[in-house]
Amino acid sequence: DIAEIIEEITDDSEIRMTVILFRLLPKDVLVEAFSYLPSDLQVDIVNEITDKEINYIIQELDFDDKIDVLEELPANLVNKILEKTPKNERKQINTFLNYPENCAGSLMTPEYISLQKEWTVEDALEHIKEVGMDAETVYTCYVKDTGRKLIGIVSLSTLVVTDSDVKIKDIMKTEYIYEDVDRDQEEVSDDFKKYGYLAIPVVDKEHRLIGIITVDDILEVMEDEATEDIERMNGVIDFENSDKGYLDISVWHHALNRLPWLIILMIAYIFTGMIVTKFENSLSTVICLVAYMPMLMGTGGNTGSQAATLIIRGLATGEVETDDVWKILWKEFRIGIIIGVILSILNFARVIFIDGNSVMVACTVCAAMLFIVIFAKIIGSMIPLIVKKAHLDPALIANPAISSVSDAVALSIYFGMATLFLNL
Amino acid sequence: DIAEIIEEITDDSEIRMTVILFRLLPKDVLVEAFSYLPSDLQVDIVNEITDKEINYIIQELDFDDKIDVLEELPANLVNKILEKTPKNERKQINTFLNYPENCAGSLMTPEYISLQKEWTVEDALEHIKEVGMDAETVYTCYVKDTGRKLIGIVSLSTLVVTDSDVKIKDIMKTEYIYEDVDRDQEEVSDDFKKYGYLAIPVVDKEHRLIGIITVDDILEVMEDEATEDIERMNGVIDFENSDKGYLDISVWHHALNRLPWLIILMIAYIFTGMIVTKFENSLSTVICLVAYMPMLMGTGGNTGSQAATLIIRGLATGEVETDDVWKILWKEFRIGIIIGVILSILNFARVIFIDGNSVMVACTVCAAMLFIVIFAKIIGSMIPLIVKKAHLDPALIANPAISSVSDAVALSIYFGMATLFLNL
Ligand SMILES: [Mg+2]
Ligand SMILES: [Mg+2]
Ligand SMILES: [Mg+2]
Ligand SMILES: [Mg+2]
Ligand SMILES: [Mg+2]
Ligand SMILES: [Mg+2]
Ligand SMILES: [Mg+2]
Ligand SMILES: [Mg+2]
Ligand SMILES: [Mg+2]
Ligand SMILES: [Mg+2]
Ligand SMILES: [Mg+2]
Ligand SMILES: [Mg+2]
Ligand SMILES: [Mg+2]
Repeated sequence: DIAEIIEEITDDSEIRMTVILFRLLPKDVLVEAFSYLPSDLQVDIVNEITDKEINYIIQELDFDDKIDVLEELPANLVNKILEKTPKNERKQINTFLNYPENCAGSLMTPEYISLQKEWTVEDALEHIKEVGMDAETVYTCYVKDTGRKLIGIVSLSTLVVTDSDVKIKDIMKTEYIYEDVDRDQEEVSDDFKKYGYLAIPVVDKEHRLIGIITVDDILEVMEDEATEDIERMNGVIDFENSDKGYLDISVWHHALNRLPWLIILMIAYIFTGMIVTKFENSLSTVICLVAYMPMLMGTGGNTGSQAATLIIRGLATGEVETDDVWKILWKEFRIGIIIGVILSILNFARVIFIDGNSVMVACTVCAAMLFIVIFAKIIGSMIPLIVKKAHLDPALIANPAISSVSDAVALSIYFGMATLFLNL
Repeated sequence: DIAEIIEEITDDSEIRMTVILFRLLPKDVLVEAFSYLPSDLQVDIVNEITDKEINYIIQELDFDDKIDVLEELPANLVNKILEKTPKNERKQINTFLNYPENCAGSLMTPEYISLQKEWTVEDALEHIKEVGMDAETVYTCYVKDTGRKLIGIVSLSTLVVTDSDVKIKDIMKTEYIYEDVDRDQEEVSDDFKKYGYLAIPVVDKEHRLIGIITVDDILEVMEDEATEDIERMNGVIDFENSDKGYLDISVWHHALNRLPWLIILMIAYIFTGMIVTKFENSLSTVICLVAYMPMLMGTGGNTGSQAATLIIRGLATGEVETDDVWKILWKEFRIGIIIGVILSILNFARVIFIDGNSVMVACTVCAAMLFIVIFAKIIGSMIPLIVKKAHLDPALIANPAISSVSDAVALSIYFGMATLFLNL
C-alpha cells in the first residue's frame, strides 16, 4: 500500500522527497498512510511539515495511533497539539501518552497561563483576560524563559493584590514545588497534601514546563490509591491496573485478580496441614480439642490483621515509620497481653461451663489463646514493617498472608500447650 | 466566689445591673468569673457588652471554656471573634466548636472575601487588594445581602476576566453548591470530588454564610475517611473518633478499639465449635480430615473477604449500588465457579500425591473446596449490600464477621461432603 511505497522511497532518498510525495496524496489517504509508517519516519515527517498539517493529521488519526505518534514527538510540539484538542480527548491522550499510567505525566493538563518575566502585573492580567481559562488552571501562572524552561510561578492572588506596574520577575516565586513527569501519582498526591497547593507544575528532564496538575484531579488519585491499598490488603491484585469499576471488570479478570493469593495460601496451608497431621494421633485421643481449632485460628488471624491494618495504614499516611519498630513491638506486646488475658478469661468460663470440658482442657485452650494473641499482634505488626524496609508496598503483604502465618503459629502453640497440659 | 455572687445578683435584678458590676471587676478576675457562669447568663452578658470587651474575654479564656462560650453565641458574633483569633487556634476552635466532629462545621474557616452585589468588578478587586488573604481562600468571593444571607458567588477568575465597570450582581452565580453546617464530612468531600470546586460555602439554617471549606482540607478528610474504612473493614473501631495516630493512642485504647470484634467472634465461634463437636465421632474415625480444616476455612475466609472488599469499596466510591444485587450475585457465582474449580483441581493433586490419601478423601476435600468458594463469594458480596440497605456503614460489617460466618459455612459443607463421600 501507499505507506509501504513511502517507506521505500525514504529508504532511497531524502526526507524532503517523502514530504513532497506526502503532500500530493489526498488528505484521507495521507492520514491513513501516515498511521502505518514506522514511528521514526513519522517523526521525521512531522519535523518537516507545517504546524497546520501536523494538527490535521493528528486530529484525524485513530486514538491509539495518535498516542503512538504523540509519544514520539518532543514535549513542546505535543503541548501545542494538545492545546487544539477537545478537552475530553486531551485528557485521554494525556492518560495514554508515553507517560506510564499512575504517574505525574498522566495527570497533567497542558492548559496553563504562561507569563514573561519582563511583563508588568498589568500586562499579565491583560493576558489572562485574553486567554481566559478554567477556574482551577488560572490561579497559578508560570513564568518561562525563552527555552521554555520554568523559571518561576506567580499566583493570581499575588497579581490581584500587587500594584499594576510591578514587574513579574520581581514578584515571581523562584522556589517552588514541581513534579518530574514520571513521578508516581501517590507521591504527587502526598505533595498536594503536604503543601496544600491548588496546582503543581510538571517538568521534563530539561526542566521545561510541560503541564500542570490541578488539585481536583488529585481527589480522584487519592480515591484510587485508597482503593488500591484496600484491595491489596485483602488479597485482590489488579493486574490490569485498570480504572474500571467492579461491574465493568469481566468475570475472568476478577478470577485472575483473586487467584494468585488463594493459590499461594493453598500452598502455605500444606505446612499447616503437616502440623495437624503430626499431631493427629494425640488429637484422636482428646478429640474435643478439634472443636477449638477454628476459634483459635480465627482469633489469631483477626487480631493479627487488626495490628497489620493499623501499621500498613500508618505507613501509607506517613504517620508510622520503619524506625518506630521497637516502639511498635513494645506497644503491640502490651496490647496483646491485655486482649489475650481478657479473651482467655472469657474462654475459660466457656470451656468449663458451656462445653463442660475438664479444667485441663480449659487451661490448654486459654494458655494457647493468650500466646496466640500476643504472637499474632507481633507478627501482624512486624511483617508490614519488614516489607516496607524491603522497599515493597506493605499493602501487598496482604491480610491473607498474615492470617495464614498466624494460623500455622496458632496451631503450633495450641498443640504445644496440649502436650504440656494434657501430657499428650 | 465572684461568679456565684454575680449569679445571685442576676437572679434578683436585671442583666444591666450585672454588666455594670461586671465592668467594675479587675480584668483578670472578670475573665475567671465569666468562665464559671452558666452559659445562658454568659450569652446575656455578651449581648450587653461591647465587641471589644467580648474579644478581650474570649481571648483570655482557657481553650475549653472558650469553646463552651462560643458554642452558645450566634453565628455572626462567633465569626467576628474568630477573625481576630490566631490561625492555629481558630482552626482548633472550629474543630471543637459545637459542630460535631467530622461535619462541615468543623472543617470550615471564617476567612473569606465578602462582596456587595452593587459593587463593580473594580470595587471588588480593590477590596480584595485591601483585605488580601491566603491563596486558597481568595479564589471564590461571596456576595451577601444585608441580613448576612448568602445570595451568590463570584470566582476571582471571573473578576479578572470581566470589564471593570460590570456590577457584581450581573456576574455572580446564584446557583451554587453549598453545605449545611452539620453535613457529614464524607458527603462534603463527595461534593468536592463531584464538582471539582476549590471552595464550597457553609451556611446555617437561615442560609447565612458562616464559613467556607477549602479543597486543601478535603485532602485530609479523604485520607481520614479512607483510614476509617480500612480500619473498620479489618475489625478496628475507633471509639474516640480521634485523629490521633497509631503511636499516640494509648495501649488501653488500642485494646478497647480492637476487643469488641474479637469478643463477638469468640461468641460466634461457639457455634462453629458445636458444628465440630457434632461431627467429633466421625472425625476420630477418619482423623486425616482434620488436617484439611485450616485450609478450607482459610480459603473460604479469604475468598469471601476478597468479594466483600470489592463490594464495600464499590459502595463507598458510589460505583456499586444496592440495586445491582442480582448482577453482583450472578457475577460472584461465576467467579466462584472458576476459582473453585481451579483450586479443587490443584487440591486433588495435593491430597493424592503429596499427602497420599485415598481418592474418596480427595473427593471430599475438593467438592468441599468448590462449594465453599462459591458460598464464600456469595456471602462476602451479599452481606455488605444487606448492611448498606439497612443504612449502616458496610465497612462496619468487617472482614472478621465475614470470615467467621464463612468458617461455619466451610465446616458445615466439609462435614456434609465427608458424610456423602465417606459414609460417615
Ligand atoms: Mg493514565
Ligand atoms: Mg477544568
Ligand atoms: Mg483538571
Ligand atoms: Mg500506587
Ligand atoms: Mg499504595
Ligand atoms: Mg481465618
Ligand atoms: Mg501517603
Ligand atoms: Mg472536628
Ligand atoms: Mg491557608
Ligand atoms: Mg484551609
Ligand atoms: Mg465517616
Ligand atoms: Mg466511611
Ligand atoms: Mg464516596
